[in-house]
Amino acid sequence: MAQNKPLILITNDDGIKARGIFFLAEAVKEMGEVYIVAPDDAQSGQSSAMSINKPLRITSHPEHNGIKVFSVNGTPVDCVKLALHTIVPRRPDLLLSGINHGSNAGNNIIYSGTMGAALETCMLGIPSIGYSYLSHSPQAEFSNTLPFLKSITRKVIEQGLPADICLNINFPKGDIKGAKVVRAARGFWTEEYAEYIDPNGKPFYLLTGNFKNIEPEAEDTDYCWLDRGYASIVPARPDQSALDVIDEMKGVFE
Amino acid sequence: MAQNKPLILITNDDGIKARGIFFLAEAVKEMGEVYIVAPDDAQSGQSSAMSINKPLRITSHPEHNGIKVFSVNGTPVDCVKLALHTIVPRRPDLLLSGINHGSNAGNNIIYSGTMGAALETCMLGIPSIGYSYLSHSPQAEFSNTLPFLKSITRKVIEQGLPADICLNINFPKGDIKGAKVVRAARGFWTEEYAEYIDPNGKPFYLLTGNFKNIEPEAEDTDYCWLDRGYASIVPARPDQSALDVIDEMKGVFE
Repeated sequence: MAQNKPLILITNDDGIKARGIFFLAEAVKEMGEVYIVAPDDAQSGQSSAMSINKPLRITSHPEHNGIKVFSVNGTPVDCVKLALHTIVPRRPDLLLSGINHGSNAGNNIIYSGTMGAALETCMLGIPSIGYSYLSHSPQAEFSNTLPFLKSITRKVIEQGLPADICLNINFPKGDIKGAKVVRAARGFWTEEYAEYIDPNGKPFYLLTGNFKNIEPEAEDTDYCWLDRGYASIVPARPDQSALDVIDEMKGVFE
Repeated sequence: MAQNKPLILITNDDGIKARGIFFLAEAVKEMGEVYIVAPDDAQSGQSSAMSINKPLRITSHPEHNGIKVFSVNGTPVDCVKLALHTIVPRRPDLLLSGINHGSNAGNNIIYSGTMGAALETCMLGIPSIGYSYLSHSPQAEFSNTLPFLKSITRKVIEQGLPADICLNINFPKGDIKGAKVVRAARGFWTEEYAEYIDPNGKPFYLLTGNFKNIEPEAEDTDYCWLDRGYASIVPARPDQSALDVIDEMKGVFE
């Protein structure tokens, strides 16, 4: 087993038909044995959701340039869990998620299916990276990301990541000037719904909205450096316990 | 407006028919003006998922003992977002989610629809609490939780919570000896799928499994104190940026 190449599991939240996942798989296939296990359909905004009481099925697709390809009728977390349980022949050495068609910068990590998958394998101790691109276009080219994609992935294969830490990486369009390790900008969404009236006169709502970065002056955030043309690397931790306020809260609630 | 009672928005992930949400609403209705906006159906394990490209509809239900009741054909986060956008007459002073039929202790915060809702309003600066109960029974009585439920809710109405912090509270069954402010125990799920063969001879999979607490000896976790008969209070932060490793990661990736 010692001579095995690293096993790289790749998923996404845009689904098995997205360009981004095949661009990513092609970019890293020289570094290991690559398995794609992605949702059948788009699963944007699915966070760490998992399917309960829903029969999950695995579809096997033709091998693509040496890359093994499967899809699952579920969320990104379903894909990862089922891949580990049933599909991959051994524990992956690396999980890559993406390349997402669209930004996952700022506190949008919390909604991101791309990052849901990365946080999932991070909790199992597998080095995990979510890659996203600041364009929603299905035709996005991604070629500007290639040197960074390869260099970052290779470093993580060689050096691993700290315990309980995964990476949320966003790439800008155009020339990429470098990479910056930063925190997620905080913000929130405004004007979140478009209202419609159906043929029976009843209202329905579709999600829309704009993300408002509430700290546009901060120089240590992903939003700041993406605006300046850099790739942003946010180390993220699945555990949301706020250790720094536990003592203060003990005074209030115990 | 000054004489308005606090507006309390209540949601859950077990859906509008669950006992837990009405128990919670009844318990706190003396403290404010209560709006229930809950999913039409069970949404367990939906994390911070939101519905994209899905028409959301609001159903108005008869008022229940002075409590206004609505449901939405979406996730807990959809309910909260749409409630704020369209249903409640002013910004809520408090968001309560639950009482969940089942534990959300340990790092299961990440999958929890109950906590997805609380994290959502926390990001908007609204004091937010998720309440869960260590029984999945639809017939759970919850009466042992009542003094803690009232006292904790009242304290949060009076004193608020620190910025960017919400609470993940779990109640044990039986006599509750007290409340402990703790961190989430770390662990992972094992044996996650049951495999079946459909009438056409094809396999499908249903989620199952057991949570393995990987730090059973730790005395500062929710699992530890729930086992001892205490309510656990975990302060949780939506922002998953791991600030403590940013400098170390700069050395690797910049």
